[in-house]
Amino acid sequence: MELLNDDYYMRLALSMAEGASGQTGINPVVGCVLVKEGRIVGMGAHLKRGEGHAEVHALNMAGEQARGATAYVTLEPCSHQGQTPPCCERLIRDGVTRVVVAAVDPNPVVGGRGIERLQEAGIEVKVGVLEAEAASLNEAFNKFIRTGIPFVTLKTAMSLDGRIATRTGHSRWITGAASREAVHTLRHRHAGIMAGISTVLADDPELSTRLSVPGLQPAKIIVDSKLRIPLTSRVLGGTAPAIILTTQGADKAQAERLRELGAEVVICGSGERVDLHEAMRALGQRGISSVLLEGGGVLNGAMLQAGLVDKAMLFYAPIIVGGEGAPSAFAFEGHEDMSSALRLSRIEINRFGEDWCVTGYPEGGASA
Amino acid sequence: MELLNDDYYMRLALSMAEGASGQTGINPVVGCVLVKEGRIVGMGAHLKRGEGHAEVHALNMAGEQARGATAYVTLEPCSHQGQTPPCCERLIRDGVTRVVVAAVDPNPVVGGRGIERLQEAGIEVKVGVLEAEAASLNEAFNKFIRTGIPFVTLKTAMSLDGRIATRTGHSRWITGAASREAVHTLRHRHAGIMAGISTVLADDPELSTRLSVPGLQPAKIIVDSKLRIPLTSRVLGGTAPAIILTTQGADKAQAERLRELGAEVVICGSGERVDLHEAMRALGQRGISSVLLEGGGVLNGAMLQAGLVDKAMLFYAPIIVGGEGAPSAFAFEGHEDMSSALRLSRIEINRFGEDWCVTGYPEGGASA
Repeated sequence: MELLNDDYYMRLALSMAEGASGQTGINPVVGCVLVKEGRIVGMGAHLKRGEGHAEVHALNMAGEQARGATAYVTLEPCSHQGQTPPCCERLIRDGVTRVVVAAVDPNPVVGGRGIERLQEAGIEVKVGVLEAEAASLNEAFNKFIRTGIPFVTLKTAMSLDGRIATRTGHSRWITGAASREAVHTLRHRHAGIMAGISTVLADDPELSTRLSVPGLQPAKIIVDSKLRIPLTSRVLGGTAPAIILTTQGADKAQAERLRELGAEVVICGSGERVDLHEAMRALGQRGISSVLLEGGGVLNGAMLQAGLVDKAMLFYAPIIVGGEGAPSAFAFEGHEDMSSALRLSRIEINRFGEDWCVTGYPEGGASA
Repeated sequence: MELLNDDYYMRLALSMAEGASGQTGINPVVGCVLVKEGRIVGMGAHLKRGEGHAEVHALNMAGEQARGATAYVTLEPCSHQGQTPPCCERLIRDGVTRVVVAAVDPNPVVGGRGIERLQEAGIEVKVGVLEAEAASLNEAFNKFIRTGIPFVTLKTAMSLDGRIATRTGHSRWITGAASREAVHTLRHRHAGIMAGISTVLADDPELSTRLSVPGLQPAKIIVDSKLRIPLTSRVLGGTAPAIILTTQGADKAQAERLRELGAEVVICGSGERVDLHEAMRALGQRGISSVLLEGGGVLNGAMLQAGLVDKAMLFYAPIIVGGEGAPSAFAFEGHEDMSSALRLSRIEINRFGEDWCVTGYPEGGASA
């Protein structure tokens, strides 16, 4: 049995925030729990950009009972007028006497000022309860708000020997049903899904979220330097917008045809290949704060080498494929010396049916 | 806190058996705990082939207190005269009134007869307490006693993308200190360590157990079809015998020189490559009941394809090596279709420092 303490209520607030992951756009996910005299009197989470913050929902639920209560908030309450009024003023007005905060807001517009404002009003503030968990929940937001560049999670499914297909190119399926369902949850939680043209040509994927319940449909992003994408590709259908990243040299008429089909064609550099740094900036400008990279080996390798991968989620199936030419999950020139190999840190391993997922952060990356 | 019940005492007996792993040769490891009126009155484990069985050590410790006690034994007590007198008779003579057994002895000479003998003498017998744990502890013995073929554990260390070296052949070190120490424990627990000639030529390994405490030195087994092994190889030194598996066509004079250095040279078939099935039988005839396979990719692949791998222990480091030609942990032709890939079952994952080990049993193998 868990002990009733600050951690306990913060964990509840965090689980509410996590539940809303993927549906707040470029806003962070936030949860709030109000506790008075041993009873929870209010609970809230930020559910949609432009709508109420977590604190406001919780205070509305508590009503008069907020007076003298403790507020557990996963992120520092805002002190500025944004799309909604500042939460600090509302907490003060409603008579909350203690505020427990998990993480300070990395948004430069907030940056500690919320905490100062509460303290000025005589409210007791405690900061840093379950801070690491809160930061991890908003890792995409934390990068995006500082850099304007989307947080990129590389996801791949491979065999024990690192293959994403057999030597004949056969790839369906490597992992089992539980892993594949987890990937659809990941898609729901990202603003965009990115794949390379080779994957589109080989598999004709939909790049959509397919869950047993309705899920959000993130933008579909295709890296296609020469605009080889067939106009009948499934990725061009569906409700979510398709964004094709290409180069100056790509065929103009083909670009026009793709636009007519509703796709956005974005020129990223004049080189042979898409300038991936420019591409990421372009996606950020379009409000895409997080990208799930489901590239083949070549795109995965290029994104890794460009230092643009913030997090890797590697699903392994308990199979050995063999075959010297069988495609690897990371097709790039590779390192000469073991000690210079790309290292992931903060490794976590989670089981999905017979498979498991290794999660880690490339060292030297924005979020290592 | 654990509950005091049959599981509790059996777990203690199992941990004593596990402690003796690797030091009983072709005998199983066995633990025994004697309990009377709520007190442990005797404990024992089989420590060395030809010496006392677990029950005898425990009964000696208990003395007169064995009368009316319950014996927890991880393996069915023997009923036949072997190198030592039958344990059943000793349990009966000393007045034990209840015997709890984890696993029935797969040795055809015992095979349930021990349990029958105890029951005939009026002793209450309970079978199957923590049976799976007990079977796993003696998985090598269980295979060897039935087939005469050693139980083979494939061990390899690789990167996240399944590489055992960089594209330039650099391989030291992939995994960290904790993983490498675990491998020395594994060596201590096996009767032989097997490597391919490519590994000897590339790394000149000692293939010895190096722990912070003294460990046992298993036989060193080299697969070397053409006897290319240099006479100065480190593997030919040390206290443990070296066994070189080769073919009829190998140079006779070189074989003689190796024998003069104390190595045993064993001819396995007349083909281009060592007949691995014949090799395993030859090792079994020499009393080698378990082999730790530390081959390079080619030997690993060949042993897997021959269906001779009973268990795989794959150590992963959190690094990505890349490089198309970088050697894979399993170099064999490979499967055409994902669904025909070699599958491991009963997956377990254990962390070692920053690394982890995936343990599984090839499906279709003797122990899957």
